Amino acid sequence: MKSLICLNPCVCAAADVSLTNNAEVKVMKALVYQGPGKKAVEERPKPEISAPTDAIVRIVKTTICGTDLHILKGDVPTCAPGRILGHEGVGVIDRVGAAVTAFQVGDRVIVSCISSCGKCDYCRRGMYSHCVNGGWILGNKIDGTQAEFVRTPHADTSLYHIPEGAEEDALVMLSDILPTGFECGVLNGKVQPGSTVAIVGAGPIGLAAQLTAQFYSPAEIIMIDLDANRLEVASRFGATRTINNTDGKAVEKIMNMTNGLGVDTAIEAVGVPASFITCEDIVAPGGVIANVGVHGVKADLHLERLWDRNISVTTRLVDTVTTPMLLKTVQSRKIDPKKLITHRFKLDKILDAYETFGAAAKTGALKVIIEM
Amino acid sequence: MKSLICLNPCVCAAADVSLTNNAEVKVMKALVYQGPGKKAVEERPKPEISAPTDAIVRIVKTTICGTDLHILKGDVPTCAPGRILGHEGVGVIDRVGAAVTAFQVGDRVIVSCISSCGKCDYCRRGMYSHCVNGGWILGNKIDGTQAEFVRTPHADTSLYHIPEGAEEDALVMLSDILPTGFECGVLNGKVQPGSTVAIVGAGPIGLAAQLTAQFYSPAEIIMIDLDANRLEVASRFGATRTINNTDGKAVEKIMNMTNGLGVDTAIEAVGVPASFITCEDIVAPGGVIANVGVHGVKADLHLERLWDRNISVTTRLVDTVTTPMLLKTVQSRKIDPKKLITHRFKLDKILDAYETFGAAAKTGALKVIIEM
Amino acid sequence: MKSLICLNPCVCAAADVSLTNNAEVKVMKALVYQGPGKKAVEERPKPEISAPTDAIVRIVKTTICGTDLHILKGDVPTCAPGRILGHEGVGVIDRVGAAVTAFQVGDRVIVSCISSCGKCDYCRRGMYSHCVNGGWILGNKIDGTQAEFVRTPHADTSLYHIPEGAEEDALVMLSDILPTGFECGVLNGKVQPGSTVAIVGAGPIGLAAQLTAQFYSPAEIIMIDLDANRLEVASRFGATRTINNTDGKAVEKIMNMTNGLGVDTAIEAVGVPASFITCEDIVAPGGVIANVGVHGVKADLHLERLWDRNISVTTRLVDTVTTPMLLKTVQSRKIDPKKLITHRFKLDKILDAYETFGAAAKTGALKVIIEM
Amino acid sequence: MKSLICLNPCVCAAADVSLTNNAEVKVMKALVYQGPGKKAVEERPKPEISAPTDAIVRIVKTTICGTDLHILKGDVPTCAPGRILGHEGVGVIDRVGAAVTAFQVGDRVIVSCISSCGKCDYCRRGMYSHCVNGGWILGNKIDGTQAEFVRTPHADTSLYHIPEGAEEDALVMLSDILPTGFECGVLNGKVQPGSTVAIVGAGPIGLAAQLTAQFYSPAEIIMIDLDANRLEVASRFGATRTINNTDGKAVEKIMNMTNGLGVDTAIEAVGVPASFITCEDIVAPGGVIANVGVHGVKADLHLERLWDRNISVTTRLVDTVTTPMLLKTVQSRKIDPKKLITHRFKLDKILDAYETFGAAAKTGALKVIIEM
Repeated sequence: MKSLICLNPCVCAAADVSLTNNAEVKVMKALVYQGPGKKAVEERPKPEISAPTDAIVRIVKTTICGTDLHILKGDVPTCAPGRILGHEGVGVIDRVGAAVTAFQVGDRVIVSCISSCGKCDYCRRGMYSHCVNGGWILGNKIDGTQAEFVRTPHADTSLYHIPEGAEEDALVMLSDILPTGFECGVLNGKVQPGSTVAIVGAGPIGLAAQLTAQFYSPAEIIMIDLDANRLEVASRFGATRTINNTDGKAVEKIMNMTNGLGVDTAIEAVGVPASFITCEDIVAPGGVIANVGVHGVKADLHLERLWDRNISVTTRLVDTVTTPMLLKTVQSRKIDPKKLITHRFKLDKILDAYETFGAAAKTGALKVIIEM
Repeated sequence: MKSLICLNPCVCAAADVSLTNNAEVKVMKALVYQGPGKKAVEERPKPEISAPTDAIVRIVKTTICGTDLHILKGDVPTCAPGRILGHEGVGVIDRVGAAVTAFQVGDRVIVSCISSCGKCDYCRRGMYSHCVNGGWILGNKIDGTQAEFVRTPHADTSLYHIPEGAEEDALVMLSDILPTGFECGVLNGKVQPGSTVAIVGAGPIGLAAQLTAQFYSPAEIIMIDLDANRLEVASRFGATRTINNTDGKAVEKIMNMTNGLGVDTAIEAVGVPASFITCEDIVAPGGVIANVGVHGVKADLHLERLWDRNISVTTRLVDTVTTPMLLKTVQSRKIDPKKLITHRFKLDKILDAYETFGAAAKTGALKVIIEM
Repeated sequence: MKSLICLNPCVCAAADVSLTNNAEVKVMKALVYQGPGKKAVEERPKPEISAPTDAIVRIVKTTICGTDLHILKGDVPTCAPGRILGHEGVGVIDRVGAAVTAFQVGDRVIVSCISSCGKCDYCRRGMYSHCVNGGWILGNKIDGTQAEFVRTPHADTSLYHIPEGAEEDALVMLSDILPTGFECGVLNGKVQPGSTVAIVGAGPIGLAAQLTAQFYSPAEIIMIDLDANRLEVASRFGATRTINNTDGKAVEKIMNMTNGLGVDTAIEAVGVPASFITCEDIVAPGGVIANVGVHGVKADLHLERLWDRNISVTTRLVDTVTTPMLLKTVQSRKIDPKKLITHRFKLDKILDAYETFGAAAKTGALKVIIEM
Repeated sequence: MKSLICLNPCVCAAADVSLTNNAEVKVMKALVYQGPGKKAVEERPKPEISAPTDAIVRIVKTTICGTDLHILKGDVPTCAPGRILGHEGVGVIDRVGAAVTAFQVGDRVIVSCISSCGKCDYCRRGMYSHCVNGGWILGNKIDGTQAEFVRTPHADTSLYHIPEGAEEDALVMLSDILPTGFECGVLNGKVQPGSTVAIVGAGPIGLAAQLTAQFYSPAEIIMIDLDANRLEVASRFGATRTINNTDGKAVEKIMNMTNGLGVDTAIEAVGVPASFITCEDIVAPGGVIANVGVHGVKADLHLERLWDRNISVTTRLVDTVTTPMLLKTVQSRKIDPKKLITHRFKLDKILDAYETFGAAAKTGALKVIIEM
């Protein structure tokens, strides 16, 4: 696959511009999915450039996503056993392919959870999640970021420079969770100054939607959950009201709070039919139901009540098209994503990290940072 | 000009600027809903001004809507027996209340199916259908237009001047069917130059969506129906493709036509779960399902397939906020709404008109004109 | 003009539903424009209902606008000597015309600077400032709010209810200055999370634009002025940077601050050619110049530099269409408009108020409250 | 597939996948700018791949743009003598760099006048014209398309596949003129169904704006020019009205046509102050002035009249971001761009083509096709 003799590093597809200084590294540690219910830290060969648009990133910090837990349950058929998990992280460019022009070895970068070729129709429409040459592939169809190194395809359009002086912990949240809450929940949900927002689900993704909804100064952000601890976090993060729906009265309470009108924006951040239907029940005429949750089954859409309500229902897989915008909001301190970080682990303790993250109801985990 | 003594709190003679010339008319003919399955032409008192913002319109032409058939089946609980039906029509101003400033006796007008107070929050947001003082009330909660005269509340913001030289037949289509197809289907569906549109249902409302979709020069308008005659009409009106779904293969055919991508805009113009689900099956990533149909039961929303597709589902009751825009398109001959008219009747033959309209599959009726 | 005997108050155009309880008030005090350079507090007849859509508002608090100073200079030809000035204020409904349905005697209200009929094409498009039956007429073409009472035409669509518990001082800012800064500057300027905004002019209107720009969490708000005091206020209100342009280096400094790119939004809040041209010099490709200032002469538009820059220039007279939205932001404490209030006077000291407001450079006046 | 020994850092044979079949071609004919007022057909070396993202395109058809005439006058300082002119054309892929994935040798392509890297901030915001690695460089900063071959940088994001069966003549119009009229005039100008559009200048670019404005079914398209022949063409292309402004009465006539309101969209397609000011004079409140013309000097912006008119002025260099959309409209016959072609020449007669195009007033030339 590689040329035997190539004196010109800059255009050869197999070009490895950092061959020398990293020559010694051959293997690395990685968290590997071994089939439903099984995972382990394994030694793996360090990844190599396989296309001129690739980069190799040395991971500095990564995290675990709820989606990783879904994979481990066997719910994500595109992810085969043997896959290194993880689609979030920050790191340092270790090598770049010959066609990479925006990054150099040594650059500090955010790895986006979405790989975008920048060329296909979807990418050119800002729908990177549907990139025909990428999309969500990291830690899914190709090896991911819960490892010492990762190969990132389409590096120029899938990595982002970390500004001087930025906090890496905060920026790990830009790989996935913040753009997901923002794009799927807040932008799709058309949050406006003075508007009323309800978010069903105060887990990490619901909280990310809450934090980014605050960019638009809504009058009310109502958080609904069954977990008192999460609602307490939501209050601390600035929710104007919280509702513990263990009594099943969330709809009634919200209609009372809103003089029977309902909310302008209802964000579904759980991924089950019941929470989606709650959104149908509380959305005001002219409002939006912005779905963020990952759903495994269908939900009832009560068109017999909704057909004449002038509402929209939106769905979206995060495109990470707002990463540059979000980076500016973090740099200018309009948001502090570090709030979402509750625990920290070293890579060799990543199994503990999974345990903590997986037992969030008990541990209070939101996002865990895994450091190399 | 004003009465010296006014005893009647609601129809003060001061508010009745055409007392003299219409004094002789006391009764009128009207089509009255008499309870499920029953209707008749009755003599009724001519309506009178009851609020200073009212007008009385002498109806010149009216029509029948599919919704009228629903009322007759007993499906519309807000419409009580004894109601004069009809929410469409053109006519001449017969009287105006004291606060009416935009219309004078003798003005030729379009009666909008939606009464809009122009004052409430919904009206000021362009959501006239949700007007807290109006909305769809004509031929529903108050007497309607299938009569010689009708009282129209909020006249200044619910009637539209007929321009000099305009064709009244065409403008009857502006009361309801054209704005419904345009607002709920085409605008909500974000039809664009070069885009691909599928419309499920080639009845009058689906055809109105088709005709108004053509304003935006989509590359394809695919019409789906079970009725060969309606599809033939759709072709004549400019559909680029038609699909008779009696074999249940519409989805398959559309996916083939679109290289497996699906359509940018899927317009539901039937009002049953099956046609809504067809829309779910054919909408492309990034596309819109624009619901126009009136639904009596819920539909399955396959979030397990759609959650990551970046789609929108929209619902809307026509607001008639585009009536001025549509009027300009009719006047400038960008659209010929008369195409939708298939039959004509005199008011005293309105029962025949209902029969013809109700047996559309046999008669080929789209819109019927009832003339005074 | 009035009926001699009318027993029905509710539809008579001359109806005066509070005749009895206010019967004693016949005259009032008002600040009257007496021709260029001249003004005085005069006794005037209390205004009366002249159209069924009118209301009479007893003013509780009003303020002075820069436009009032322009009128006094003789710069506003539509405003004839003898006019009661003022287009801002809060008060209590004293009387309503027969067609007024949204307000009752005793209701506390905000008087909008723009009178909107709610019926004309412009009003229905949200362009109340161009209302063919209203627009900016208060304190201009008809008597205004710097008086004990004011007649407000089109009351239902030109007044706004004051919510229970709201602070009237804050709400006086909703009559004009906040919607002007917000609509003409911030909305037209498309301020976004993470974006860079420069506002040329830190007077009351520039500061109103600054405060409302913060709804959208821009990364930078750069305020430019020649007055150190105003820039100090701007800093206190949250400007991220201030530039005193007495050295004429504002453009250079902004280009340095923005890595030579310029700003996403440049808001002109002065109304002279030089400040508009500053905006041309600092707007980034893809950006917007949002003009807020009132201009008396033309400005050079450097199309030879701008034709290929993908920019927009916007102009607008405030429509006050965002008043309901702004009211929600005030009620939910997303903004504190009282910050803009620097001085308070009683109505009989309104000449002092004018003096203080007119000498803002010396007095530091931003907005002055005049209380009855 | 790859070279064993590569000595050339920038045109590594590994990047030249069509070495063999084109090995014989070494020189080509090209139209070269030789300094102000001078041009000639010269023999030049066939261009070679110089970056892995380059392609070499064998030009089949090209055309001449008004901008080429500007260059020849010496008005474009970025274009140095010795430059091969031309930024429009269709052709066949001759060679591709190693990182080109969307095109293969033999593919038929449209060459966009704008080179877009697809990676920079501007490209990712759809502002390809401001690409920091490209933009308008062809026939300006690098050699262009009026030659047998052209090197196109950023091929994957700057070339477009020609669909099977498409007419190449028509598609030459997609390189520049149609997207310019559409993006800068029609999209920026917010043309809507039923709206009123005036286009000042009925040259090729004004006519391209006219043709693409028709996508949106405006009620009126009023074309203004001084040339009777061009106005006759405009009528033939579907203008609803034409105005010959040799009497200087265009403004007066348009205000009469529009009941004194003015037009919703005024498109400037000349590039001189007088025509821009005409647009200022005819734009209705709430309307848009969309500048398309290339301006050499400033224009007066009459803010003293416009500050309160709620208008927008937009500028833009074509981004060609709508090329895929326009391609669909051409393929579905919503537009026939061949209408713009008036003359045809072989490459060796390109000097005649320039003469014909340059003397358009006499020859009636709109667009000339130059065939290889």
